[in-house]
Amino acid sequence: MPQTLAQKILQAHTDEAVRSDGQIVQCRVSMVLANDITGPLAIKSFRGMGAEKVFDKDKIALVMDHFTPQKDIDSANQVLISRKFAEEQGITHYYEGGDCGVEHTLLPEQGLVGPGDLVIGADSHTCTYGGIGAFATGMGSTDIAAAMALGETWLKVPPTIRVNIRGEMPRWLRGKDLMLLLIGAIGVDGALYKALEFGGPVIDALDVEGRLTMANMAIEAGGKAGLFAVDAQTRAYCAEHGPGLDMELAADPDAVYERVVDIDVTGREPVVACPHLPSNVKPVSEVGDTPIQQVVIGSCTNGRISDMRDAAAVLRGRKVDKKVRCIVLPSTPTVWKQCLKEGLMEVFMDAGCIVGPCTCGPCLGGHTGILGDGERAVATTNRNFKGRMGSLSSEVYLASPVVAAASAVAGKVASPDAL
Amino acid sequence: MPQTLAQKILQAHTDEAVRSDGQIVQCRVSMVLANDITGPLAIKSFRGMGAEKVFDKDKIALVMDHFTPQKDIDSANQVLISRKFAEEQGITHYYEGGDCGVEHTLLPEQGLVGPGDLVIGADSHTCTYGGIGAFATGMGSTDIAAAMALGETWLKVPPTIRVNIRGEMPRWLRGKDLMLLLIGAIGVDGALYKALEFGGPVIDALDVEGRLTMANMAIEAGGKAGLFAVDAQTRAYCAEHGPGLDMELAADPDAVYERVVDIDVTGREPVVACPHLPSNVKPVSEVGDTPIQQVVIGSCTNGRISDMRDAAAVLRGRKVDKKVRCIVLPSTPTVWKQCLKEGLMEVFMDAGCIVGPCTCGPCLGGHTGILGDGERAVATTNRNFKGRMGSLSSEVYLASPVVAAASAVAGKVASPDAL
Repeated sequence: MPQTLAQKILQAHTDEAVRSDGQIVQCRVSMVLANDITGPLAIKSFRGMGAEKVFDKDKIALVMDHFTPQKDIDSANQVLISRKFAEEQGITHYYEGGDCGVEHTLLPEQGLVGPGDLVIGADSHTCTYGGIGAFATGMGSTDIAAAMALGETWLKVPPTIRVNIRGEMPRWLRGKDLMLLLIGAIGVDGALYKALEFGGPVIDALDVEGRLTMANMAIEAGGKAGLFAVDAQTRAYCAEHGPGLDMELAADPDAVYERVVDIDVTGREPVVACPHLPSNVKPVSEVGDTPIQQVVIGSCTNGRISDMRDAAAVLRGRKVDKKVRCIVLPSTPTVWKQCLKEGLMEVFMDAGCIVGPCTCGPCLGGHTGILGDGERAVATTNRNFKGRMGSLSSEVYLASPVVAAASAVAGKVASPDAL
Repeated sequence: MPQTLAQKILQAHTDEAVRSDGQIVQCRVSMVLANDITGPLAIKSFRGMGAEKVFDKDKIALVMDHFTPQKDIDSANQVLISRKFAEEQGITHYYEGGDCGVEHTLLPEQGLVGPGDLVIGADSHTCTYGGIGAFATGMGSTDIAAAMALGETWLKVPPTIRVNIRGEMPRWLRGKDLMLLLIGAIGVDGALYKALEFGGPVIDALDVEGRLTMANMAIEAGGKAGLFAVDAQTRAYCAEHGPGLDMELAADPDAVYERVVDIDVTGREPVVACPHLPSNVKPVSEVGDTPIQQVVIGSCTNGRISDMRDAAAVLRGRKVDKKVRCIVLPSTPTVWKQCLKEGLMEVFMDAGCIVGPCTCGPCLGGHTGILGDGERAVATTNRNFKGRMGSLSSEVYLASPVVAAASAVAGKVASPDAL
């Protein structure tokens, strides 16, 4: 039977024959993830189940990234729970402090997840790893606890929506724009419990970091996973970030899809998702004169080195508008150091940005850039729900780093072309 | 009548004759300061008094430094109050976002306060500016509101304790150690409503940033002000950081002091203030084996470029202990950029530090480095009261940046000599 990417990867992790979408299969997991918010819940469930030892101390990652640097007493105490558990269980991949970064940037960067893997995490953006050909999905802390104990989980084989992207990629479009265009087209529930499988010439040419950005937002369309074939670019990325591997992974040419969506990007301009849904997508020029008070460049969606380079390219020699606080948060220490090496930190600081630590912080309204009443932000993050970044009367516009940086300079939602 | 430094400066700001300590004098102020916490309180009082215009829009500084980058909705909304007031009144020196830094580092650095000035601020560490020969002191928000309206305030002329520091300055001793030694000697109420006036050969040789550190902590001995004479070093600092000025300012040789304290630093080792008082001062070697989980290098006490250089000198080529999160927060964008220029950021990141934005954050238990239950920190900040940096069961050891950096490497309270 010809298989989709989702079917192929799940097949490799189960002893059952994957025959059809909707089938429930018991799968071995490659990596189980939790963070400082979800870890303590999973650990409590783990103990509640009577579990004593994790199934494999090298296949669990605990990343203290959401409220780092410790934002308050409660979040500091939450970390203590994960730290103690990691010590007790001898967990290899426990991240806190100076080597910690945003989990979904950190894991692929450190080679802890890779093509063909089955990864589950107690965080909805676990789907990020689909950008390098892993079937990765978010689950609740109880499911994560069970997988931490057993090394297995059950999954319903998701139907797949094939997304073909073609045409001539315009200068300022990025993976973020492609994904926002898709979500704008199919809606925030357009891929509910389905896999999104991306292909077509634009995707073939898209760099791996752009693919990770796209896969990251699969959940914003309700997707169970966002999947990219493993090609030469993926292999080069994996060789740079880990032991590397000699794998090809693609859907069969005659695989059966529930739906096929075609997008042509020729002549498109950069887009933003306007408040209060990721699907409320408009070309930048149609947003109108929208003054902003904050820009956030970072997060698991767009905090990688290519994002930093994009932002710096726009900010170089320019100044952030006096009324805007432009917060730059490289996602991991490796990205942070690379920014130093390439002179990007000077660009950010000379432009008048605030450069901060590697943290999820403002994305989830946690800290390090919260919006007050009526304030507006352009952010490279993934969600713009009402109150997501602060006050219920605040607004978030989602955009790529080039649009975010241009908006910081303009003091309003703007494209780099408008500067 | 021969005069102390305090008497001389107050005399220059009042039309009354300063005749004796304890006398109440009405003074013109050079600069009035408030921050994101105290500004809204002062603004409310200002309006409550029926005041309409500030006395001088160039002599008020509003610095949004404590909860920046905006830590939560409440603190973001507090900033809105100050921002609106600054716009309405045309306040020249309103700092928020990318040009904002920790107020007491920012104001001298930007040349907004200088020798001979009388500065009042709604922040207890306003006394910092005594390091460059300003009479500077913290006041409540109501007094600040009145001064914002009138340009005047009343002061009781404080008696002065003269502190003479002599001997041979040991390699690892800094201004921080000198001040802790004094506070250890006289106690946290040893200078209650008194001016501390520093002199002697060690002080003459001490750089201006070291003096700012010492003056900053005058309040930790209860002092109304901590004062240093204006000498060639002060003039060089002011020329670097502002228009410069050709002023001499020293106490008269026969000035009358309430008390004279003599400290000889020969052979002293670096000290820390142990929990839970700044006066609980011990030589590092007497602290014992005290594991720590956090180090903070920054704050209005020790977040200047000399502090960053000190920390980097110890951290260069070394690694922060895996169990310690070492948070480096340069106090202002200027310091941050200078760290970039001198390659200090590479040193911090290579050592495994977390480098953050310019903020007061952890010093007051605000954010960006809060301690959980039972956690211990070494910090270059100014207060180690119970619960100051987080949980009531956490502990803070106050130290210089060299000791803080050495402790980060050692994983426990340590002197650089012990590495």
